[in-house]
Amino acid sequence: MLVDGRPYRSIWSAADGEGVEIIDQTLLPFVFRVVRLATLADAAHAIRDMQVRGAPLIGATAAYGIWLGLREGLSKAHLTAMAAELIACRPTAVNLRWAVERMLAHLVPLPEQERRAAALAEAELICTEDVRTNEAIGQHGLTLIEEIWRKKGEQGTVNLLTHCNAGWLATVDWGTALAPVYAAAAKGIPMHVWVDETRPRNQGASLTAWELGKAGIAHQLIVDNAGGHLMQHGMVDLCIVGSDRTTASGDVCNKIGTYLKALAAQANKVPFYVALPGSTVDWQLHDGVADIPIEERSENEVLFMQGRDEQGTVRRVGIAPAQTRAFNPAFDVTPAHLVSGLITERGLCAASQEGLRQLYPEQVHD
Amino acid sequence: MLVDGRPYRSIWSAADGEGVEIIDQTLLPFVFRVVRLATLADAAHAIRDMQVRGAPLIGATAAYGIWLGLREGLSKAHLTAMAAELIACRPTAVNLRWAVERMLAHLVPLPEQERRAAALAEAELICTEDVRTNEAIGQHGLTLIEEIWRKKGEQGTVNLLTHCNAGWLATVDWGTALAPVYAAAAKGIPMHVWVDETRPRNQGASLTAWELGKAGIAHQLIVDNAGGHLMQHGMVDLCIVGSDRTTASGDVCNKIGTYLKALAAQANKVPFYVALPGSTVDWQLHDGVADIPIEERSENEVLFMQGRDEQGTVRRVGIAPAQTRAFNPAFDVTPAHLVSGLITERGLCAASQEGLRQLYPEQVHD
Repeated sequence: MLVDGRPYRSIWSAADGEGVEIIDQTLLPFVFRVVRLATLADAAHAIRDMQVRGAPLIGATAAYGIWLGLREGLSKAHLTAMAAELIACRPTAVNLRWAVERMLAHLVPLPEQERRAAALAEAELICTEDVRTNEAIGQHGLTLIEEIWRKKGEQGTVNLLTHCNAGWLATVDWGTALAPVYAAAAKGIPMHVWVDETRPRNQGASLTAWELGKAGIAHQLIVDNAGGHLMQHGMVDLCIVGSDRTTASGDVCNKIGTYLKALAAQANKVPFYVALPGSTVDWQLHDGVADIPIEERSENEVLFMQGRDEQGTVRRVGIAPAQTRAFNPAFDVTPAHLVSGLITERGLCAASQEGLRQLYPEQVHD
Repeated sequence: MLVDGRPYRSIWSAADGEGVEIIDQTLLPFVFRVVRLATLADAAHAIRDMQVRGAPLIGATAAYGIWLGLREGLSKAHLTAMAAELIACRPTAVNLRWAVERMLAHLVPLPEQERRAAALAEAELICTEDVRTNEAIGQHGLTLIEEIWRKKGEQGTVNLLTHCNAGWLATVDWGTALAPVYAAAAKGIPMHVWVDETRPRNQGASLTAWELGKAGIAHQLIVDNAGGHLMQHGMVDLCIVGSDRTTASGDVCNKIGTYLKALAAQANKVPFYVALPGSTVDWQLHDGVADIPIEERSENEVLFMQGRDEQGTVRRVGIAPAQTRAFNPAFDVTPAHLVSGLITERGLCAASQEGLRQLYPEQVHD
């Protein structure tokens, strides 16, 4: 996507062929800074500290991380150790494991001296495929928006609510949940996006609002508490969110608070769709609430907020009494029965085993 | 309640008999400052700028405001003008109108020269009654907590979730939603409170956490997004929230986001109670979603956060891109069918016309 007229992806191999470059997402929307990753440790740090985040982008970063780490050794044992280190960085998103396992499956059978070049090629392929996947998600999701636009008599705006950031910054490009928004805007449909702030890390306020602003798409920031009220009053035509892990039965694990919006959507008959690449499906799981491990992050994410003061300095401020402790689960699970449908690179389907089986017949099901 | 060993209410007439004193709640939890209100304008400002907030406390402040304003005139016309000015300060909470109308009904029939003394006496009576009301709410709510404690075999803690602040700071003393918590703690039941942060003004993080900390009650701060996940995993035994306006049919208007928690409670079979004095019921309304006016507050409440930096200075920081706009509805309506019951000063009742009619038979119903 364009940033002030210049095309960017969220990750790319550096021009000198020796490193990887990312946009440090912990600094947005205040500072746009490109950071270079030179080692496996750099890649692991970027994932753990959320300089990169979003299931597809985490996967791409891990793939490049394997390539970077092969400088320190080429053996199968080293590959296995790198895989374990990367997978441990974030427990919930399944793309991380998916990308790492794909890299190992590709590299282990090769002679050691071929592994570095092959790792770079495979990481680049994962990125290329991600972009193509998201373009396809955008086109399939566009059909939903076009249908709403027709039903509204092509009057006003299509009002879409999204939670967290599943835009191009969460992927290599285009995004998942926002890909249909970009596709609709490109078709001339006037979009208006309600952007959930998404506490505690504020990915809505800091990333989604920034993306939409750069793309010139109308949006308004709301607190996470507001979406139910908007839906009660007919102010939301459609919800689309992303997914960090999807069970084979269509349960969706996404940023904490997604479940509350899904409940409100069902109560108010607002379509609630989840946009995801097939790589986000964990085909071994069938009960999301029981089986998906939910990452607990530092309580400081709740107790402190980052923002820019009147002098333009980015500061962290505490918002609670000094002795107050917090609890910070990072994701929640939306059961399939609350999901109107899934938007995948292969088309739309029901959030169910049958729906997913039809689109992904090659996957083994119980 | 005690603050560092000294008993406080949230509002009181000053020792010199000439003014009213309040705790400036916009400064909590960072600074505990008592502010003097000397005029009607001071009282209106305190309500509008939320130095005082919470439906019962707003009512008490308005009552004192009438007393203060009688220094500038004693006529019926002046009383009527004051009433209009005060009621316009906050559109959603009905206690404001209730208290002002009660003051006028009491004062207008009196000779002008008696009005000042009578106004002070009536404002004090409103406060005394509020404290008694909240004590009764505490005792009735306690029965729910005792029942849960018994069902848990008197093991662990009773885990209660609350949204916003309906503690003693929202009333003259004791609070509504928190009165049962204080009553249970006094009985030796180990309470643990999940405190919703309550964006955008963070009354949970800044007021409820502060209150519970001062009272020595175990609590953890969570983002507003987290409650659904906690309920899914059996980590919440009971929700109690307050109400800014309740319809005669039991619909509850409370801080934005309450509705989302009520949806999650119903989906997970967690009891969801609303604690309120009878003065919060608007007997003329029967459809909360359609009929209760929802205050829209400044978008800056969403775009900026207040907190304390590492040097201890309280600062406002911006959290969104400079060009991003926000939308900020301050309340939402929870339909009666999502409410397990109401906790009033007269006892527990169903959130329905029949339930309220049984407890308040003197009220005229359609």
